[in-house]
Amino acid sequence: MNAYAEIYKDELLNEVIPFWEKYSLDKDCGGFFTCLTQNGEVYDTDKFIWLQARQVWMFSTLYKSVQKKESWKEMAVSGADFLEKHGRDQKGNWYFSLNQSGRPLVQPYNIFSDCFAAMAFGKLYEIAPEERYKKISTNTFANILKRQHNPKGNYNKAVPGTRNLQNFALPMILCNLSLELEPLLGSDSVTEITDSVIDLVMNTFYDETSGLVLENVSDMGEFIDCFEGRLLNPGHAIEAMWFVMNLGIRKNDKALIEKAEKIMFQQLEHGWDDEHGGIFYFMDVKGYPTQQLEHDQKLWWVHLETLVALAKTYAYNQNPKAANWFKKVHDYTWEHFRDTKNGGEWFGYLNREGKVLLDLKGGKWKGCFHVPRALLEVWKTLKNTAI
Amino acid sequence: MNAYAEIYKDELLNEVIPFWEKYSLDKDCGGFFTCLTQNGEVYDTDKFIWLQARQVWMFSTLYKSVQKKESWKEMAVSGADFLEKHGRDQKGNWYFSLNQSGRPLVQPYNIFSDCFAAMAFGKLYEIAPEERYKKISTNTFANILKRQHNPKGNYNKAVPGTRNLQNFALPMILCNLSLELEPLLGSDSVTEITDSVIDLVMNTFYDETSGLVLENVSDMGEFIDCFEGRLLNPGHAIEAMWFVMNLGIRKNDKALIEKAEKIMFQQLEHGWDDEHGGIFYFMDVKGYPTQQLEHDQKLWWVHLETLVALAKTYAYNQNPKAANWFKKVHDYTWEHFRDTKNGGEWFGYLNREGKVLLDLKGGKWKGCFHVPRALLEVWKTLKNTAI
Repeated sequence: MNAYAEIYKDELLNEVIPFWEKYSLDKDCGGFFTCLTQNGEVYDTDKFIWLQARQVWMFSTLYKSVQKKESWKEMAVSGADFLEKHGRDQKGNWYFSLNQSGRPLVQPYNIFSDCFAAMAFGKLYEIAPEERYKKISTNTFANILKRQHNPKGNYNKAVPGTRNLQNFALPMILCNLSLELEPLLGSDSVTEITDSVIDLVMNTFYDETSGLVLENVSDMGEFIDCFEGRLLNPGHAIEAMWFVMNLGIRKNDKALIEKAEKIMFQQLEHGWDDEHGGIFYFMDVKGYPTQQLEHDQKLWWVHLETLVALAKTYAYNQNPKAANWFKKVHDYTWEHFRDTKNGGEWFGYLNREGKVLLDLKGGKWKGCFHVPRALLEVWKTLKNTAI
Repeated sequence: MNAYAEIYKDELLNEVIPFWEKYSLDKDCGGFFTCLTQNGEVYDTDKFIWLQARQVWMFSTLYKSVQKKESWKEMAVSGADFLEKHGRDQKGNWYFSLNQSGRPLVQPYNIFSDCFAAMAFGKLYEIAPEERYKKISTNTFANILKRQHNPKGNYNKAVPGTRNLQNFALPMILCNLSLELEPLLGSDSVTEITDSVIDLVMNTFYDETSGLVLENVSDMGEFIDCFEGRLLNPGHAIEAMWFVMNLGIRKNDKALIEKAEKIMFQQLEHGWDDEHGGIFYFMDVKGYPTQQLEHDQKLWWVHLETLVALAKTYAYNQNPKAANWFKKVHDYTWEHFRDTKNGGEWFGYLNREGKVLLDLKGGKWKGCFHVPRALLEVWKTLKNTAI
């Protein structure tokens, strides 16, 4: 397995990161272009807060964990400046998107903007310890915790009382975000928050009967037989399991790590498309039609996060099952998502059969994040394995 | 062309309508189940106002235009009773969805619930002239006109001022809805409303440069180079053109009908998939990647509405181009969407290659509407053509 480390490192440093360095910087207005064609042409200039923040986090992380390259730090700072100047409303909530110059386009209906902003400024503070970066990160994090039980606020369209659902995404992200912010939040605070979200993820959203993680359960933690209640997102569940493994390692909790491994394999086996290969995007736990027309597509982040989860599992216990699955998912992912013609960033969206469906390198939901983060994680994780 | 009339009539009366009669009635709570598997099994019991109302409209229309069958009227009345009892909030806005028993699930963020409710109660009033049906329809219609410039109200996530967009769907639907409600609204009122929406559809949303109808333009009517501004929905545009043809016939405006025909053909030629057949769901006017992952799928309503538009064109002027396109779209549609094994209602969602993607007969967005309405329209339109 450790032979993979070099391959992932090489792809990260010689293909993926140079693509974003070359094409994504907006020299006129600051911030990043993320809507890039396969050749790096900017086809849309809107700035999506998720992706702006994720790119700040990515370059800060590279500076911190790979090499003290000034241009990486400058990239991170330039994105952060743009976010600091334009990204929030008067209450400190992060918009969903801005136009090229930074004027707000879409209101802060989406709390994940805040999550990625907190993560970005937190990591930036580690490499550029300005008090204001720390403050932006911790204030934003406090605001997330305050909003966590009604993250959409006034934009929540559910009528209260009839069917109160809770969604998996925020607890899942908090597993990772809290750990990311430990240098700022302190250890006790992280323990308290993560114990509560681990319980949610591993007991409330994990459904013993099916052996799968549900995307939505009732506020009492029950399965609800409706479109949202039946929804599975295998990629989400698998990604969450490597977040939980990290928390298990932090707590030195062997049982937790093993439970995360078990759930990860169950999700992967259930989500794998035996006919065409790859992992489905959405499924219905009862096998009924999903609402999502894109349910059978193969998405880059699903596969990359699965590789991270498998690499972490293997590094922890050298389970040959993890090695076998890693090879299988690696082969599918590198063969289908990588752009063998142009190099650079990878493709993101394939149809069920594995053909490129949208030939963009970046868009409204795909930026400089899942590909480089996974390449970095796999590289760092596998380079220390014995074989 | 007139040989098609019988085929469409037969499919409507012996396959599609019996399917909904047999499987969709909720005998316990009233209203209709629309989430039905290919065998008619109910896989979800939620009630979506769009679809409840459309089914009331459909059975009222069948009773009015096809045959005075008591069971059809009862079906319409039963759906209307459920809607009347449970469908609206205290201000008279229609919810988006209810649970099986009628408790509201999703708030009235979506004005199309109101459009289809107005249409349903208007048509029902024509076959069951109860004052309260008329009042529900006309009050709802007045409310739509009041809300038309900000149809999402508090649920509108756009920050005002940065990029004010107007969307094509409401003016398009008003072209049809006003005409549907003429018996209740009176002729002068319909003329006034439709003159204004025809102008919007044919001048503001129709883009001379590309020859295509844009889904979103600025509040000043300009093209905006962003995801929403570049978006095309060929099925929408083609459906709108048969609404406009009906209005042209009502006004005896030959130039308007011919312009609608011209735009319809431009859309169809641009939206047709030369490689696999069928009409794309979404496209980008500049050819860039769309936001919509389902962009290349083939949807039932797109093809059925196109058949209506082509039949109407042919009936109007016997243009052989309309006959040729009708045959081509007919062959694709009947071959791919019709369920040759089980009969009944048709499939709705195909992948680009024409393979069934979701094998449901009805769902959250597909009910008893586009298939039977189009079968009825084509039958009635073509049965009087000379050849």
